[in-house]
Amino acid sequence: MNRFQHIRHKPPVILVSRRELVVVCAPMRSHVNLSHIVRSCGCFAIQRVIATGTARLDEKIARDGADSVELEVHRSLPPVLTRLRAEGYELVGLEQTTNSESLFSFPFAARTALVIGNERTGLEPDALALLDRVAEIPMAGMPHSLNAATSASIAVYEYCRQFPAGGGTAESTARPGAGPG
Amino acid sequence: MNRFQHIRHKPPVILVSRRELVVVCAPMRSHVNLSHIVRSCGCFAIQRVIATGTARLDEKIARDGADSVELEVHRSLPPVLTRLRAEGYELVGLEQTTNSESLFSFPFAARTALVIGNERTGLEPDALALLDRVAEIPMAGMPHSLNAATSASIAVYEYCRQFPAGGGTAESTARPGAGPG
Repeated sequence: MNRFQHIRHKPPVILVSRRELVVVCAPMRSHVNLSHIVRSCGCFAIQRVIATGTARLDEKIARDGADSVELEVHRSLPPVLTRLRAEGYELVGLEQTTNSESLFSFPFAARTALVIGNERTGLEPDALALLDRVAEIPMAGMPHSLNAATSASIAVYEYCRQFPAGGGTAESTARPGAGPG
Repeated sequence: MNRFQHIRHKPPVILVSRRELVVVCAPMRSHVNLSHIVRSCGCFAIQRVIATGTARLDEKIARDGADSVELEVHRSLPPVLTRLRAEGYELVGLEQTTNSESLFSFPFAARTALVIGNERTGLEPDALALLDRVAEIPMAGMPHSLNAATSASIAVYEYCRQFPAGGGTAESTARPGAGPG
């Protein structure tokens, strides 16, 4: 018998505390990308995604993420960032900028707002000016630029890798869900 | 002046050695997903992607990844896995299975073949039987299942995080490219 048997509906990991990561998107060109971001956030139990501009979800892509994630939509990004800072979030852009730090060695604060730029234009100067830090995924080959939803999902993964049990604790105390046997 | 200035065409990181990761895909339902995987592999300087089944690329999605990545297409997966094992690759599935290990704490061998399952059916038993290890991205919320290209990109990221300078060395000796100033 195979040592590895596909598990079709594996119960999720139970986090010991709610995740404190908020994902914030600049106005995006593509509702496909926004929908993929919401799906990934759902999978990682990120509960709050803030979209700006004319945001809408394709539920076929976002899947149940559209139900499990609380999606707020606001007209523009800078006032959202100002409010999140007042709520105690560290504002982290995901972008290639001057003074950006490699995501490979980027210690996240538990209470982080991850700020995703537009597919073409990235983050505008008025948003960049409000950030505390910028994380960058090191590019080593062509086309030198990941899809926006892919890079957002990678950064969310990296945050969760650092806080496997939820927000606030870096210890790996997440309990696996009660398995099927 | 802003501390963070968007850099539009940042030169890539120069790796000290060629990456030894090979990404291998089961026959995929969607050429969109395969194309996204090739784009991500290009960005991370993965030079060899093996697709099986009736694989084709959408170059608008794969972008320059279609040029920088060597894409091999084979009819079926098991003979490819047998050949890669003979070439000295550790065969690592990306899947939810019995005896899978969390990607959050998964030490990759430098010479790894990462095996990606079909979007719906995952990896078939005849492929699972050939694997050395299985890595799983811990799911903590709905829809409990990442997009196939997203999960592949996350696993490639995790490998590169462990080998930032290329294959074979875990030390962070990658040199940043010569910057624009």
